[in-house]
Amino acid sequence: MSVFQVELKKVVDDSYEIEIGYQLENRLIEDLKNGLVGKIKKFAVITDSTVKELYADHIVTLLQEAGYQAREFVFTAGETSKTRKTKEEVEDAMLEAGFRRDCCIIAVGGGVVTDLSGFLAGTYGRGVPFINYATTLLAAADASVGGKTAVDTPLATNLIGLFNQPEKVYLDIAAWKTLPQRQLSSGMAETIKHACMADKEMFEFLEKHMEDIFAGDREACEYIAKKNCQIKYAVVMKDEKEQGLREILNLGHTVGRAIETVSDYRLLHGEALSIGMVAMTELAHRLGYMTEEEKTAVKNLLEKAKLPVEIPEYIDREALVKKLYTDKKVRDGKLRFVVEKGIGGIVEFEEGVFATPVEEAVARDIIMKMK
Amino acid sequence: MSVFQVELKKVVDDSYEIEIGYQLENRLIEDLKNGLVGKIKKFAVITDSTVKELYADHIVTLLQEAGYQAREFVFTAGETSKTRKTKEEVEDAMLEAGFRRDCCIIAVGGGVVTDLSGFLAGTYGRGVPFINYATTLLAAADASVGGKTAVDTPLATNLIGLFNQPEKVYLDIAAWKTLPQRQLSSGMAETIKHACMADKEMFEFLEKHMEDIFAGDREACEYIAKKNCQIKYAVVMKDEKEQGLREILNLGHTVGRAIETVSDYRLLHGEALSIGMVAMTELAHRLGYMTEEEKTAVKNLLEKAKLPVEIPEYIDREALVKKLYTDKKVRDGKLRFVVEKGIGGIVEFEEGVFATPVEEAVARDIIMKMK
Ligand SMILES: NC(=O)c1ccc[n+]([C@@H]2O[C@H](COP(=O)([O-])OP(=O)(O)OC[C@H]3O[C@@H](n4cnc5c(N)ncnc54)[C@H](O)[C@@H]3O)[C@@H](O)[C@H]2O)c1
Ligand SMILES: NC(=O)c1ccc[n+]([C@@H]2O[C@H](COP(=O)([O-])OP(=O)(O)OC[C@H]3O[C@@H](n4cnc5c(N)ncnc54)[C@H](O)[C@@H]3O)[C@@H](O)[C@H]2O)c1
Repeated sequence: MSVFQVELKKVVDDSYEIEIGYQLENRLIEDLKNGLVGKIKKFAVITDSTVKELYADHIVTLLQEAGYQAREFVFTAGETSKTRKTKEEVEDAMLEAGFRRDCCIIAVGGGVVTDLSGFLAGTYGRGVPFINYATTLLAAADASVGGKTAVDTPLATNLIGLFNQPEKVYLDIAAWKTLPQRQLSSGMAETIKHACMADKEMFEFLEKHMEDIFAGDREACEYIAKKNCQIKYAVVMKDEKEQGLREILNLGHTVGRAIETVSDYRLLHGEALSIGMVAMTELAHRLGYMTEEEKTAVKNLLEKAKLPVEIPEYIDREALVKKLYTDKKVRDGKLRFVVEKGIGGIVEFEEGVFATPVEEAVARDIIMKMK
Repeated sequence: MSVFQVELKKVVDDSYEIEIGYQLENRLIEDLKNGLVGKIKKFAVITDSTVKELYADHIVTLLQEAGYQAREFVFTAGETSKTRKTKEEVEDAMLEAGFRRDCCIIAVGGGVVTDLSGFLAGTYGRGVPFINYATTLLAAADASVGGKTAVDTPLATNLIGLFNQPEKVYLDIAAWKTLPQRQLSSGMAETIKHACMADKEMFEFLEKHMEDIFAGDREACEYIAKKNCQIKYAVVMKDEKEQGLREILNLGHTVGRAIETVSDYRLLHGEALSIGMVAMTELAHRLGYMTEEEKTAVKNLLEKAKLPVEIPEYIDREALVKKLYTDKKVRDGKLRFVVEKGIGGIVEFEEGVFATPVEEAVARDIIMKMK
């Protein structure tokens, strides 16, 4: 018997910039000219059927005008496209078009496009660089920090994927103007969650400027885009390996995710989260971590963002209680919740422990008594 | 416009051990008990339909006896299974069986099993640890160092995948005894290639002990398994990013890969490589880097390993010449070859350049004049 030691210790630098601004298409081209991805001259622009005409076509044209080889790969818009099958189809189309290891992927769209493209980039030729050009508030709020990329399978969402960091992220605020209101509101739910868990000042800003944001005010939009990045980044950096702290990003998601599923995805993720936030504040109140006023402030802000704050009639509340047990925070068969503390804080139950066991009876009672 | 900087610089340690020995099943169990993969208690053993009964079933039994939760996931043996579809089927079966992020994958088999399993492990739950228990000489010779994992697609072999390092690799020499002779010979081709490019002493050892290896002599088998690791490791370490040096591993592969394809995979990879090595030595001879005797020595050694050294009758030699252009070393439409220097060396044409342009007329002439 003999042993051979393979030594593979090295320094990896996956740092990248998130640029937040208004119509960043030309900034992207400039960056490429300035060597953002080295000498690469071949770009696969991946997008969905809605974003194609709105933004991606234009980017492809700009790339070509700048002398790059650029091809567009388009899949049907919507979460149902975030599958291994779509990944395979895009891969085959790229291979067919002669793309090999010497290319760079540019994802233009919302979280579905960036999640799928980032995953695809990570396994194409064992990894090619990718750039995210994010066109939704949700992608700005949540999907551009953390390096999570994935697709869904019939049995689990986001379970097949990779941690893979982009070369750069562009958050184009101008693109939010074409977003349907429900989509903008849905992204706002994650934004409000961030404020609730980490930043009272941001919460107050949102109370004051919600209309401005919906009206597309540049400064207000830039402010929240940047705040979102900062808050998520602070959490992710302190907890890269998905231990305790990252769980706080799950605030409101215990009930939220369950409602989303029980609604059979009639509710968008952010809409379900909004209802989950209301349930969570009630729990926080009962546990003594939020006052009646704070609870109301969160609810009012969600309503200002045109988000639902009541459980829709068609939801079977008993089914909802059962569904809580599929939450990934469940441990030894016990429900666990992340709990807000006042406005802009999270309860740390023990050192490094940010989720607390909650009796089913309590969770049920909250759900049954909610509007 | 504002810019947010995401800092992600860190030290990554992907080091691992390759243990080479005779019947290592119990060593694997010991290592797990000693914390090889931390507290993980759940194992997905991935294997193929041939290796299942020969080795994998036994490992599953040992795991279960040791108190671990272990399930076997089996796919049909053969290169044609190394696809995204098989990966998807195994993933779905694992999800169905309740495997989430808290598991470890153990690949038991040859290069097809370890390539597919390593890739699958890298994207399951955004990455779970994996262990390779390699049962073929080829896996020992080639697949256990370098971290390459991949699957094939209709348009390209090994192009969808990842660099992903295992927690540990076991090279079980006892398993070579059940390998069909053609498979053993095929693995021997890569072994001879390693000796040719880097180690004259190993070359002489092979000349002397080829029969012993085929007879399953432990010491001789251990020696070559270890040498293979050392040689490949030295190359891969010096060239992690697949720049120049790694190309030397391609010795003999320019013609080899082409014959493999033109034979429509009637020839195993190592068999095709063997013929490619003969073609390469002729080129080396013509370029003045190998003597007539050295050329003959390589050919004799390949024959000793029961490998073909002539182009089969059914091969269309013109088609073969054409096929050379699909080689990944082709640059600006020009064929490029890695060339052996004497026995145990490689020609460095310029600093860091290990492949040289070769006129098609020369390549054609060599192919046409070969037996
Ligand atoms: N990677 C992460 O860390 C992370 C975090 C949160 C969410 N996500 C993922 O993000 C996805 C949801 O993100 P999303 O809401 O952006 O989804 P999405 O990409 O499906 O976009 C929502 C809809 O808006 C359309 N659209 C996008 N930009 C538009 C624009 N500017 N104008 C008009 N229409 C536009 C899209 O075509 C789509 O129909 C989910 O799959 C979720 O899992 C990932
Ligand atoms: N990752 C890398 O760096 C790397 C390097 C070289 C080759 N490869 C890959 O490895 C694959 C070829 O490897 P391989 O030849 O081991 O292929 P393989 O896994 O298909 O094994 C060859 C055959 O032998 C059978 N077999 C395996 N072990 C046996 C045993 N002990 N006794 C009897 N039968 C046994 C298998 O069922 C299969 O039918 C290719 O897909 C190639 O791309 C990868």
